[in-house]
Amino acid sequence: MVNVVSVKDFVQLVDQVGVISFFEQLIDQLDQDFKRWAEFTKSPRHAIHVDGGVMEVMPTADSELYACKFVNGHPKNTYEKLLTVTAFGWLASNENGYPQFLSEMTLLTAFRTAAASALASKYLSKKDVKTFGIIGTGAQSEFQVLAHAAIFELSEVRYFDVDHNAMKKFAKNLESYGLNLVACHSAQEAAADMDIVTTATAAKKQAAVINRDWLKPGVHVNAIGGDCPGKTEMTEKILKAAKIVVEYLPQTEIEGEIQQVLGETSVYAELWEVISGKKAGRTSCDELTLFDSVGFAVEDYSVLKLVQKLCQDYGIGTQIELIPSVDDPKNLFGLLKN
Amino acid sequence: MVNVVSVKDFVQLVDQVGVISFFEQLIDQLDQDFKRWAEFTKSPRHAIHVDGGVMEVMPTADSELYACKFVNGHPKNTYEKLLTVTAFGWLASNENGYPQFLSEMTLLTAFRTAAASALASKYLSKKDVKTFGIIGTGAQSEFQVLAHAAIFELSEVRYFDVDHNAMKKFAKNLESYGLNLVACHSAQEAAADMDIVTTATAAKKQAAVINRDWLKPGVHVNAIGGDCPGKTEMTEKILKAAKIVVEYLPQTEIEGEIQQVLGETSVYAELWEVISGKKAGRTSCDELTLFDSVGFAVEDYSVLKLVQKLCQDYGIGTQIELIPSVDDPKNLFGLLKN
Repeated sequence: MVNVVSVKDFVQLVDQVGVISFFEQLIDQLDQDFKRWAEFTKSPRHAIHVDGGVMEVMPTADSELYACKFVNGHPKNTYEKLLTVTAFGWLASNENGYPQFLSEMTLLTAFRTAAASALASKYLSKKDVKTFGIIGTGAQSEFQVLAHAAIFELSEVRYFDVDHNAMKKFAKNLESYGLNLVACHSAQEAAADMDIVTTATAAKKQAAVINRDWLKPGVHVNAIGGDCPGKTEMTEKILKAAKIVVEYLPQTEIEGEIQQVLGETSVYAELWEVISGKKAGRTSCDELTLFDSVGFAVEDYSVLKLVQKLCQDYGIGTQIELIPSVDDPKNLFGLLKN
Repeated sequence: MVNVVSVKDFVQLVDQVGVISFFEQLIDQLDQDFKRWAEFTKSPRHAIHVDGGVMEVMPTADSELYACKFVNGHPKNTYEKLLTVTAFGWLASNENGYPQFLSEMTLLTAFRTAAASALASKYLSKKDVKTFGIIGTGAQSEFQVLAHAAIFELSEVRYFDVDHNAMKKFAKNLESYGLNLVACHSAQEAAADMDIVTTATAAKKQAAVINRDWLKPGVHVNAIGGDCPGKTEMTEKILKAAKIVVEYLPQTEIEGEIQQVLGETSVYAELWEVISGKKAGRTSCDELTLFDSVGFAVEDYSVLKLVQKLCQDYGIGTQIELIPSVDDPKNLFGLLKN
């Protein structure tokens, strides 16, 4: 039997666990898995480009589990009030190949993306983070804020979006979390003087979401919105000034902010190198650090593994016979009725 | 909502439709899809090799639908009374990327493999097929027989396996189908003088399941069991004498019978070329034809598409919210409870 977790099931799980506690556990799971990065099979996504979008499978495996996510990317969906990115994924046992767990991953991806940013912030931001600015209050924004609220004591959260309704939605969604939310009139106002700045816009083409001179010394930036070829948020000036950390260089070179400056500047580290202590994270209190995030399969593995465990603990999901049980492996036909 | 079809659901569907009618519809679906072969995106499987097995995703797409199957291969599973190959798969809309349908595919794969063989037989065997021999009465055997029974009037079905219990199971499973089943004492007895011979053994390494001189002039052979590197059933003599047809050459060169004779003999055609009339099928009544079958993603597309339609017609499956419905795509967080 495969435990199948629907959107409603996962919403129920998060309700029972609590958003902040879920983020704490997820950041911890990611931390553990990034520490043992070398144990994972890494390969590029398998993409089929279709009219209007892309269909991808993102597999990875450690010695025990295989994880894979199916995810689409259809920018024009927004105009039809559909999600541009949806996903589901599964875990299978390496020992016998049987799938064990299958889940919605549209929400799981939002959670793991934010948790990976918070993990990068944990290792790259200066000590005593108090202030957090976010540019872009779309689908990823509340997740970013709460993932950071799970590990930092934030005294101020500034936010800005060119879409005023998106800002109202953001404020309403976060009103019950006891945060000091400050609506801003410009990206500059939201970014200036913050300890951590996250950009999570639906940048089309090469956008310049923030400027180098808005950022005070020692800031850490999470660049989330630039995540496919031709779609970036950072200026070259920022990229050349920053200590850049990525998830998996072969993929980030194609999809991330650094696609703009290939050959002109170097990437400092992959995140696992910093987390495992192979390389130092921040080494001075006034350097500019930047996490160029595009999302990687190991993060999907981590969130699937955590959600599988929690669903077991809380008895959530529907058991579905996705794989036959047979007494005699040669008698597959015997499953049919006579 | 995604319609999720379990093993039990699919068994119920086949019970309502009837095995023979299901095969007729599936062979017809494959026929249509092979005719428009050029419309499908083709790419090698994505495989991750793990201890004791392999985990694969097999995606393809035409202009409307994306299909993908997750399948494992764990030879040693047999010793633990588990299936060596299990699978599930899904269809997604190219237009918006949303998954529509997800199904068990362990049984579906067995059905589509047999239907593809029958389709090859339809185009490659001589007219007036009456007799059918099968070597290997394992998990695929009954499917092979019934797929052929769906399109040929068989007066005799001979069968042999080194495992006597597997032969008994085969006879019992097929007793209600009104076939003239003849148990044989050797592979030679099962293959000699038959119009069509199917080999579907769990060949380990390079096996010689049949010999060239057992085959009468004009026979068509479906070689099913040789389907991965190092695992073959045919002798070089047969391969060099036969008009060989494959599904997709780049894959069959690695996985099929022809891996033994690369560079020494040539493949006559890909199956779609014969089905679409680009190349003639059988051109004389005494030539030896051979379908070197390894299974390809387009076949999974065909069976998923047919089963999706039939499940809709018969109201079978469970509707699961695998993808969220949102009023505002920017308000993903709003799905969570406050």
